[in-house]
Formats: sequence, C-alpha cells, structure tokens
Amino acid sequence: MKSLLLVAHGSRREASNEEVRQLTAQLGAHAGNRYQSVSCAFLELAEPSIPDGIEACIQEGAEEVIVLPYFLSAGRHVQEDIPREVAAKQQEYPEIPIRLAPYLGSAEGIAELLLGVAE
Amino acid sequence: MKSLLLVAHGSRREASNEEVRQLTAQLGAHAGNRYQSVSCAFLELAEPSIPDGIEACIQEGAEEVIVLPYFLSAGRHVQEDIPREVAAKQQEYPEIPIRLAPYLGSAEGIAELLLGVAE
Repeated sequence: MKSLLLVAHGSRREASNEEVRQLTAQLGAHAGNRYQSVSCAFLELAEPSIPDGIEACIQEGAEEVIVLPYFLSAGRHVQEDIPREVAAKQQEYPEIPIRLAPYLGSAEGIAELLLGVAE
Repeated sequence: MKSLLLVAHGSRREASNEEVRQLTAQLGAHAGNRYQSVSCAFLELAEPSIPDGIEACIQEGAEEVIVLPYFLSAGRHVQEDIPREVAAKQQEYPEIPIRLAPYLGSAEGIAELLLGVAE
C-alpha cells in the first residue's frame, strides 16, 4: 500500500502549521482507500521533519511513499532541499520507492480552483 | 465589468515572479468573459505593487476589483498586510467595490487538487 506525505514549509506561527495538519486530515478524508495513510511533514520550523515523516510511513508498512510538496513556486526548497531529503531517505531504503510528486503550484487545475475562490 | 487581481508574495527569484505571471495568463485564458481583465500584483520584491495593480484595474475602467491572495496560509500577509493595502485603496475610490477574496489555501477544492497532483 502507498502512503501520502504532504510536505509544507513550516512556520514559526503554529496556526499555519495547524492549517497544514487540518488540510492533511481533509486529504485523508477525500483519499478513500487510495492510500494506507495520509500524513504531513515540514521542511523546517515544525515537526515532524521530512526524514521523520518518511520514516513513519515506512515503519507503518508503506510499500511506496509519495512526497507531495505543498509549495506554490519552484524555488530552492522545491528544486533542491526537498529532493535532497527524499534522495537521502531513498538511499537508506532502496527497496521502497519514495516518489516526489509535482509541487502544488504546478498543478494544472490551479487556475480553475482560483477562479472558483474568486467567485 | 469586474477585474481580477491575483496577489502573490513576490520573490527575489525572478523565475518565481514569472511563474505567477504565467499563472495569471492561464487564469485569463480560463476566465472566459467573467472578467474584463485578469492581472497580478505583488506584496513585495516584485512589481507591480498591490496599490499599483488595483490602480491599473480602475484606470482601465473596472467597476469592481476582486483581489485574490495567492497564499497558502492565513499568516500576517493574508490577515493584515493585504487587507490594509486593499482598505487604503478602497478609501481612495469609495465608489468602486474592491473585494478581497479568500486566500488560495482556504479553498475547499484544494484537497482534491492535491490528490490529483499526487497521482
């Protein structure tokens, strides 16, 4: 079974981290049986870290981990930091595919979503 | 006619600002005839500023301006900075409604969009 790990930047403002956790719960509710688990991790400033989040997925028996960056632009975090953390964990567990999904800002449906928000 | 103004944070990394401009073009393409214009503005680090972006909408004849925050969490920028800039411009043009839409991260459809990205 696959595990989905939503990865956000993390904030000193705890309410922002809580927003991510609530979104993660929503994702889990919408995912049906597509994933064995849906959880979140943070690049910095909040817990769990990305390595710890991936580790938790693996420890609960994930046969594949999908890492989904909750970021709007392809900056250094998306292009370097997150891939580096994923690659390090992949090296530790070569038998379990850890796949990095596209970041949110690159989603094709984002224009339609924004138009809906603006209504 | 209404004008839609997508407001992003702005980045020192010009490619991130360019991503916002490209998304704005996509929004325009998807919007059909819902808006007279679709443009973008930046809170900081890029041009145009939010006041300048709203001003441009008004100068091209907007009868209503919808300001849409391209932000993921309800931090200080979403809760204080953007509303303050909108309110100042609203005071300057009391006859033209300038409406602040919810920020992207609060969109109901975001969970479904993320699940699509993860596929």
